[in-house]
Formats: sequence, structure tokens, C-alpha cells
Amino acid sequence: MLGRVKGYTKRRVKAALRTWARRSAPAGATAELPPSRWRLTHDGARGLCLDGLSLHGLLEVWGSPLHVVDAAALAHNAAAFQTPLAGSGRRCEVYYSYKTNPIPGVLRFLHDRGVGAEVISPYELWLAMRLGVPPERIVYNGPAKSEESLREAFGRGLLLVNANHREEIPVFARIARECGRRARVGVRVVAPGGWAGQFGVPIAGGQAFRAFQEALAADSLEVVALHAHRGIQIRTVEELDAFVGAVLAFADELHARLGLELEILDFGGSLAIPTVTPIGARERRMNQTLLRPLTPPSPDATLSPERYATRLLKLVEAHYGARGREVPRVFVEPGRALTGNTQMLVARVLTTKEGSDGADGADHAVLDAGMNLAEGARHEFHQLFPVNRYGEPPAQTYTLAGPICSPADVLYPAAALPALRPGDSLAIMDAGAYFVPFATSFSFPQPAIVMVQNGTATLLRRAESFDDQVALDTAYGSRPPRGTVALRLATAES
Amino acid sequence: MLGRVKGYTKRRVKAALRTWARRSAPAGATAELPPSRWRLTHDGARGLCLDGLSLHGLLEVWGSPLHVVDAAALAHNAAAFQTPLAGSGRRCEVYYSYKTNPIPGVLRFLHDRGVGAEVISPYELWLAMRLGVPPERIVYNGPAKSEESLREAFGRGLLLVNANHREEIPVFARIARECGRRARVGVRVVAPGGWAGQFGVPIAGGQAFRAFQEALAADSLEVVALHAHRGIQIRTVEELDAFVGAVLAFADELHARLGLELEILDFGGSLAIPTVTPIGARERRMNQTLLRPLTPPSPDATLSPERYATRLLKLVEAHYGARGREVPRVFVEPGRALTGNTQMLVARVLTTKEGSDGADGADHAVLDAGMNLAEGARHEFHQLFPVNRYGEPPAQTYTLAGPICSPADVLYPAAALPALRPGDSLAIMDAGAYFVPFATSFSFPQPAIVMVQNGTATLLRRAESFDDQVALDTAYGSRPPRGTVALRLATAES
Repeated sequence: MLGRVKGYTKRRVKAALRTWARRSAPAGATAELPPSRWRLTHDGARGLCLDGLSLHGLLEVWGSPLHVVDAAALAHNAAAFQTPLAGSGRRCEVYYSYKTNPIPGVLRFLHDRGVGAEVISPYELWLAMRLGVPPERIVYNGPAKSEESLREAFGRGLLLVNANHREEIPVFARIARECGRRARVGVRVVAPGGWAGQFGVPIAGGQAFRAFQEALAADSLEVVALHAHRGIQIRTVEELDAFVGAVLAFADELHARLGLELEILDFGGSLAIPTVTPIGARERRMNQTLLRPLTPPSPDATLSPERYATRLLKLVEAHYGARGREVPRVFVEPGRALTGNTQMLVARVLTTKEGSDGADGADHAVLDAGMNLAEGARHEFHQLFPVNRYGEPPAQTYTLAGPICSPADVLYPAAALPALRPGDSLAIMDAGAYFVPFATSFSFPQPAIVMVQNGTATLLRRAESFDDQVALDTAYGSRPPRGTVALRLATAES
Repeated sequence: MLGRVKGYTKRRVKAALRTWARRSAPAGATAELPPSRWRLTHDGARGLCLDGLSLHGLLEVWGSPLHVVDAAALAHNAAAFQTPLAGSGRRCEVYYSYKTNPIPGVLRFLHDRGVGAEVISPYELWLAMRLGVPPERIVYNGPAKSEESLREAFGRGLLLVNANHREEIPVFARIARECGRRARVGVRVVAPGGWAGQFGVPIAGGQAFRAFQEALAADSLEVVALHAHRGIQIRTVEELDAFVGAVLAFADELHARLGLELEILDFGGSLAIPTVTPIGARERRMNQTLLRPLTPPSPDATLSPERYATRLLKLVEAHYGARGREVPRVFVEPGRALTGNTQMLVARVLTTKEGSDGADGADHAVLDAGMNLAEGARHEFHQLFPVNRYGEPPAQTYTLAGPICSPADVLYPAAALPALRPGDSLAIMDAGAYFVPFATSFSFPQPAIVMVQNGTATLLRRAESFDDQVALDTAYGSRPPRGTVALRLATAES
């Protein structure tokens, strides 16, 4: 009896706190970012549309869940990173970080618009070559290069292979020698405030300087580049300036002490997506336990690709101009900022579940996409739109769970939405960075990917079938697949 | 200058703290669990061996990384969960949680030893049927059942379909009616202290009771089971007893108030792996920042499958015996406790990287397996063994990173190991639960899986090839794959 009273009291207190938390949310906190930011329009019963195509309708054709790539947004971002600097007309050379969203259809689209390939594994190098990217448009990075892939890279005369750490330099030198040609290489350094750990050689303490000395001493290596990747996201002019300043100062040191005139300054990636921000620990807690809505980021607080690229060029030009030295080529390797906001994941409600006791939790809606496909949405703000019910007033707060049997599989602990029914669809925005590469086939096959271009949807990748999931398994032994199994995959491919 | 002094001081202080942390580690903290616990033996230069097979040698045949399944351990665990209770000879009926390690070769091996299938998605239901599991050996659970899969389940007369939440009951009733047969169903309830959220109907507050009433009122449903899954891991007799007691008390309530004689009590899974424990927040911090070694769990602190199964049976028998009622069938749905410790992930060192400045970080070793394949090792203690260098004294503390370009890709922040060279191999133990289903193809293809049985290794799943990674992509357009690409996949399959 005492237990029941305690339980009841706890639930009432929690409910009261939740009401308070909702009421005390910052003004405008429940205001969503407008769909027009992603070129989405609202067309009555057809719900949200991209280029006139109903997202809900796309699910009926291609199955749910579904990744939808917006070709126009991709073209826009590709051009923005290559914005010429007023005056000199100089542009950044852009190498897309393959790991961020390695969909061949997306990669080819970028390559056709002047973007090269930044690869970090033997597979990604293979993929770039398979997609027809010329060796002189490929940069090879990362701490995990195989010797075989280095032979391939040096043998083909890749544009640039950056040593991730000092220990790679003698390996590079030996393999280049074996290939009988001088390899074009750089060294990745760590500027103060950037990622370290397994990545790069720190400028502080002189390690990076000694690594350059060692590389310059190897006859088989042509040291053409200084490579730095901040890792920690860049949002503001101040963050960009500090990072670029540190790289330029180290380039000056290499010039002054070693006489090194670098052909390339490679500034890596790290530019943030304006509409995506990490969810802070306190905000997450308020969202999870008190169902307080998340605050969308202010998109203007983050540098756009245009401003980032032109600011970077301006800093480099001014630096070398003031010293009367030739301006090096400026490389950038954007990932999330190039593709993040060009793709959305559209999912369906499988079922709803009422909250315990009305007060001990929000109602749940279980979606057909969860942490298996949208891990990013658990840690970062990603705008969510109801698709077919867009425009209906929010009726209640839902906890949106995914389909895999883990309590961790909650994408949105508290989202104010119209009343949902099974079959309704929702769109998770900015799914073009680290959604596809972090996807798993946990209990559910992976979805199809389509590209919308000029009002037409084209299949880039078909959905995994049940058979695909076991295609590599050799363990069926003597029992053949039974012809009586009638379960079909619920997509257009079935 | 001041910055340099500050940096130097910080590094010295950190180094001193690390020395202190290592020295003040609990006695025996660096002692590893013995390889014999996993039937591994040490054979000189051949390193660690399973059934006489050198693990390092297996990599040479099948490529690295490699999952190695121990058939004898699997057989042992399957038998242990089915240990007969002294006296009555009653056994638990075991339904393996497919989601935990859905490798067809492993599943078939278990099915051949009397274990049924517990599935939580349309794909897993399809897989069980494809593996030839008879419908009367399949339990279908989870919050994400499609209507099509329910038609399949009811049409075939599945042993048991558990409603995850109340809203599923009318859907079950309608589909069973359409199938023209009574469906054997249960209702998943939440006992105090168990998972809630999207899972189950709470006993507290009367929701579970009302759900049973609703199910009993549906002519097309035959209510045969009460289903409960603790979720939070069970390690001790006390935890088991409390959980079972709550389920039995609710079964009594159903009997007393509704006259319901249940055919089945389904106690779900949740038994822990004796050699795996979550890493606490403080321990993780000490490990990450001060390189203090993790403390291995004491395996005896966790119930073995034999003790768990017999204790459970004893509680149920005693409960019903005391009331003079017929003892129901006892179902368990083990996942991690059945396969977790029957599989290891063997990986190679790709490269090493010296720590910054000697004091600002441990040396790094970059492995060919990281968070893409062994996410579990980032949150739980998993015993790590050097394989080819087993027996050499620990020479230094390494930070073991994976191959994907993320600072999060660190599996072991601080592991005391012999001096490592590229090509050396390491084994991550207890990889048979939630490693394979949470695996991604992030920048690197997924590895092969072999089973070792009676001194022979058999391929269960071949490694993904580069071509496999793009097999579903339709976006090559007019440019065919170029015949000049020579990069091969570095496995035996190439």
C-alpha cells in the first residue's frame, strides 16, 4: 500500500514538473525551422513535397523508410564551396569526404560538379577509382592505409597522400621507392585545439616539424602539402580564423627553417551544418525526463559554405601577399557541410502506445527507422516534420522510438506532433552526413535511397531484401531454402 | 612562452597523475582473466590457439579482422539453459533471441540442439522459417510487427505471438479473424524495475490486467502466455527471485480475478555474461584520462546459465506446487548469455603511433577493427588478449584505436600489452552478443565469420568484398566499372 502511494506521488510530481518544463521553455522554443529551408512545400492532403513530389507518395513507390536526396541542394552546396574570391577569382579545391555519405550516386553527382574525392580507406580509394575519378583528383588520408592501397596510390600517381602520423613516413618512402616514382605527400598536423589522439602530428612540442624534416629527407617523397583537420566543428569566423592562423604560422616555420615552399595547404573539413547542433547534456536531460522541447539552432550562427570558403581564401591570400610569396593551392575536404542538409530520412509510424498511467510517460510512436538508421538524431538536433499530417496543430507530445528492441532506440524523447496513426509519415532532416555510414542491419533490412531532381525521383540504391541479409552466409548446409516461405519484403522491389 | 610553460606543466602533472593511477589500481586489477576460460591454449610462437588452431593463423587463411565462433562453447551453453531440474526433470524451453547474433550458421547450430527461435521483426521471422524452424518452435515479440508478418505468423500457427502493448491486441484479433484461426498469444508486461518505455504493459496501475481482459474478450485469440522481459541485466539470485516473484504474483492475480490458467510463463532474457560488465562512469574516466587499467569482473558474481535455469524452474514449481495447481511451461529467451562468450573478434594492428611528447598520451595502435565492429567494447569490459605475442610481458600501455576516422573510435583507452608491431593480432573476447548486429560498413567492409569445431574451421559467412558494398547501387549510369582498377580485397575470398 505504501509502495502504491509512493508510486502515485512520484508520478504526480513528475507530471507537474513536466507541465512546468513545457511552460518555462524559452520563447519560440517550440517553433520549428521552416520547411522552405529545405525547399519543401506543403500541398494539402499530399503533405510535404520536394520539387512537387509528395514525400508520403514516395514511400508508396519505394517503400518505407526511405532516404531522399535533394539534387538541387547538393548542386548548391557543391557550387558554394567553389565560390570564387572577388578580386583574384581564386577558388578552393574541394575534395568530398567519402566517409560522410558514401553513396555512389551522390558521389558521382558531386564529381560531375568539380568536386574531387577525399578517401580514408582502401575501400574508399577503390570506390573513387571505380567511379572514374582521375588519380589527380583524389586525396588519401587516415590512420589505416594498407600497404597494398599505398602501392596502388603511388603507382597511379595520386594527387596527394597525407601521412597521418610520423610512423607512416618511412613506409611511404619504402613503397614509393618500390613503385619507382616520387610520391606526392603531405603530413597531417594537429593545430592547438584540434583533434589529436590517433590523428595527426602535434605542432606543439616540435613533433610535426621533425616529421616534415624526415619526409623531406626521403628521396622517394615529394613533400607538397601541409594537412590539418580541425575535427572539432567550425561554426564561426573566429574559430576559422584561429585554426587557419595556426596552420599558416606553422607553414611559415617550415618555410623559414627548412626553405619549404608548399604547393598545397589542405585545411581538411569540420564546417558545421547550420541546422544541426549537438544536444547539450542539460538540454537532453530536460528533454528526456521532463519532455521539454529541444530548441532549434539559429542557422545564421554558423558560417555558410560560401562565407567559409571565401574567408579561408582571403586569409591565405592576405598572408602570402603580405610576405610577397606565391599563394599555395587551397584544399578543403568538407563532409557534413557539403551533403548533410541535402538528404532526409522519411519514416512511417508502425504503431502507437499510450503512456503509462497518463502521467508516467508520453505516448510512444514506434517508427520503422530508429538508431539502426538515424543514430545522429539521438545526439544532435535534427528538425523533424510530420509529412502527411503537416499543418495539423500539435495534439500531444510523443516519444518517438525506433523498431529495434533496445531501450536506447529512442530518436526523439519528446516531440510535439499532430495525433499520429499507423502509416503516418515523418521526415528527419539533414540525414546526409553519418546516417548511411553508421547504419546497421539490426533486425531490419536497410532502406532504399532515391534522388529527387527536377521533379523526378531516381533510385540510387535499392532497399536490402531479406535474401540480401544472408547473401554472404554459407551455412545453409544440406537444408535448402524452403519454397513455402511466403513473407515478402514490403518495398517496390519485392 | 607562457603558453609553452603552461603546456609543459600540464603534461608533467598529467604524467604524474597517471603514474599514481596505475600504482593505486586495486590489487590484481591488471590481472587478466585466464585464456583457459575460453578454451584458449598458448602454443609458443603459434600464439593463442582454439582447439589447436592458431588464431593468428586463421587470419592468414580468412583475412583480418575475423569473427571466430567456438562450437563447443555454443553447445555447452545450449545444454546449460536446458539443464533438467533434479526431481521433476523439468526443463526450460529455450528460444534464442535472434537479434543478439543473427548468424544463420550459429542459429542453425542452436536449433539442432533443441533451441527455438525468438524473433522481433518480419526479417527475423522470415529467417527462422528459412532455417527450417517449425512454427511451433517460434516466439514472435517486439513493438514493430508488420501486419503482413502477423498474417504469416497466425496463418502458420506460430507457437506464440506476444502483444508488446495494448494497442496490438485489436490488431491481433482482427488479423487472426481474417486468417480464420485462433491465434496463440500472450501479453508482455512490465514488472517493477524492468524496462518500460516502448516495451510492455505495466503491471502497476492495472494496465496489464486490463490488457489481459481485452485479449480474453477476443474470440479469435487464445491467451496462452504471460510474457515479461526484465531488460536490465540479471546477475544475482536476488535479482532473479525478485523478478520471478513479481511475474508469479501477477499470474496469480490473473488466475484469481479472471480464472486464467496460463499454459506458458515466458520470462524473456536478460541474463548477463559472467565475463562482461558495463564500465562505470568513474572507471571509464580513470581509464581514459589517467590510463588506469580496467578491473575485470569476477565471473562467479554472475549466475551461470545452469543455475539461472534451475533456480527459475524451482521457483515456478514451488509456487504452483504450494497452490496445488498445474505447473505451466517455462520459456526463456536468452540472448547474450547464450552466445556472448562463444565468439571472439580477432583483429590486426595496422600501424602504431607514438604518444605526443612522451607524456601527453599513450602510444596508439590502430587496429583493423574498431567501433564499426566492436561497439560493445567501448561500453563494457571485454577481455583483450594479445594473440601472436601472448606470453610476452606487457611492455607499455597502448590506446587501441579503430580504423575509422572518428575520435570516438577508441576501443581500449589504456591496455597494457607487449610491444606491438604492424601485423600483430589481438583477440576481443565475448563478441557473440550485439557485435555483429551493431556492425556497420563504415569505410571498411565487414569481416568473415568462421566456426571452429573439433579442430576444424568452417566459413559461416564470407567477408564483404568491395563490390558487395555497392551491389545495391544503381547509380553507375553510363560509366561502366573500369577494368584497370587493380585493388583487391585482402581476404581469402579475393
